Amino acid sequence: MSLARVHNFSVSLDGFGTGEGQSRDAPFGHAGERLHEWMFATRWWHKTIGRPGGLDDAFARQFTPGIGAEIMGAGKFGHPGWHKDPERKGWWGPNPPFHTPTFILTPHPRPSIETEGGTTFHFLDASPAKALETAREAADGQDVRIGGGPTVIRDFLAAGLIDHMHIVVVPILLGRGVRFWDGLEGLEKDYEAEATSSPGGVTHVTFTRMGI
Amino acid sequence: MSLARVHNFSVSLDGFGTGEGQSRDAPFGHAGERLHEWMFATRWWHKTIGRPGGLDDAFARQFTPGIGAEIMGAGKFGHPGWHKDPERKGWWGPNPPFHTPTFILTPHPRPSIETEGGTTFHFLDASPAKALETAREAADGQDVRIGGGPTVIRDFLAAGLIDHMHIVVVPILLGRGVRFWDGLEGLEKDYEAEATSSPGGVTHVTFTRMGI
Repeated sequence: MSLARVHNFSVSLDGFGTGEGQSRDAPFGHAGERLHEWMFATRWWHKTIGRPGGLDDAFARQFTPGIGAEIMGAGKFGHPGWHKDPERKGWWGPNPPFHTPTFILTPHPRPSIETEGGTTFHFLDASPAKALETAREAADGQDVRIGGGPTVIRDFLAAGLIDHMHIVVVPILLGRGVRFWDGLEGLEKDYEAEATSSPGGVTHVTFTRMGI
Repeated sequence: MSLARVHNFSVSLDGFGTGEGQSRDAPFGHAGERLHEWMFATRWWHKTIGRPGGLDDAFARQFTPGIGAEIMGAGKFGHPGWHKDPERKGWWGPNPPFHTPTFILTPHPRPSIETEGGTTFHFLDASPAKALETAREAADGQDVRIGGGPTVIRDFLAAGLIDHMHIVVVPILLGRGVRFWDGLEGLEKDYEAEATSSPGGVTHVTFTRMGI
């Protein structure tokens, strides 16, 4: 069974998945990198010895295993207006960290982009259900990661398409930005939810769909 | 030093401190009692043996020690419109669970009400700072509990008046109601925040003001 999974998606305690004022120089707006410091501190992120393993690391490194494709929103691929730049290839340089077919949901499709390291970007103007079908085919029996941003994950949740979701609640109050939890009343009825606080200060919340 | 403290204040994962549609029959609106089940399960709540102690219980029972007065909002004292009923004495029957002078913030003050068990209700039309001054005097050197609801705690936070705050994040998505975290951008800069998930499924988040 090919699952749709969310990993390492960080929200502030007041529920914002990204800050206000996103731009080329500030991909997360006024949030800066504060939502992701917990991840940058992990052994997994550094791909090196000399950093602690532990709870944050154990959660973080579930990002990769079993994933055969990613779906992301246009806002994760680039700053507002990137579609007007035909040279735009994402934020990540020559070797993006996805290493699988990666589908970008955008009303402005363009030809696919191959990169080093196995990431190939495909551009799709499709509904969540249709995009997942396409990504599953590319994943060749493996799982599909729904990579964000907040509105994309919400759209997939609202469509009932997410099987497993790992959210990291960071104890900061952003006050403004893009709300993650909006419009999901009663979501917990379809999932087993579990919360685990880490010595690093964040709380990992997992939602696993009943019966999978 | 007399501190202003918040205890056992529950919010949903999506940040609502109470549900939508509050009424005499539904004090928490569509949330029902779902935000407080963790507390009803504690040994402290039941005041009896035969219930487990543990993390939730340890947090819950900090409600009482050292408290000499409480401040609450009009919406905690009664349903919308209670001020039109001269007989209204709160939700709690003849022995309310506060056992101290208790100040209700309302634009419709009325004479104080004495009850059994040491709770005396006083009605105040005052700013947070002024109300805290009055409650501190009544607390006779002890701490003052800021009892909620969500808008009252927020008002006291915004005025910089809270010294210690214990929030319980419950893994349900209410979707609608009164938001607790709004307008508090950057609050964490003035506090030490700590999150602790409990085997009962909730996450206790404490904010302790730097330097106290």
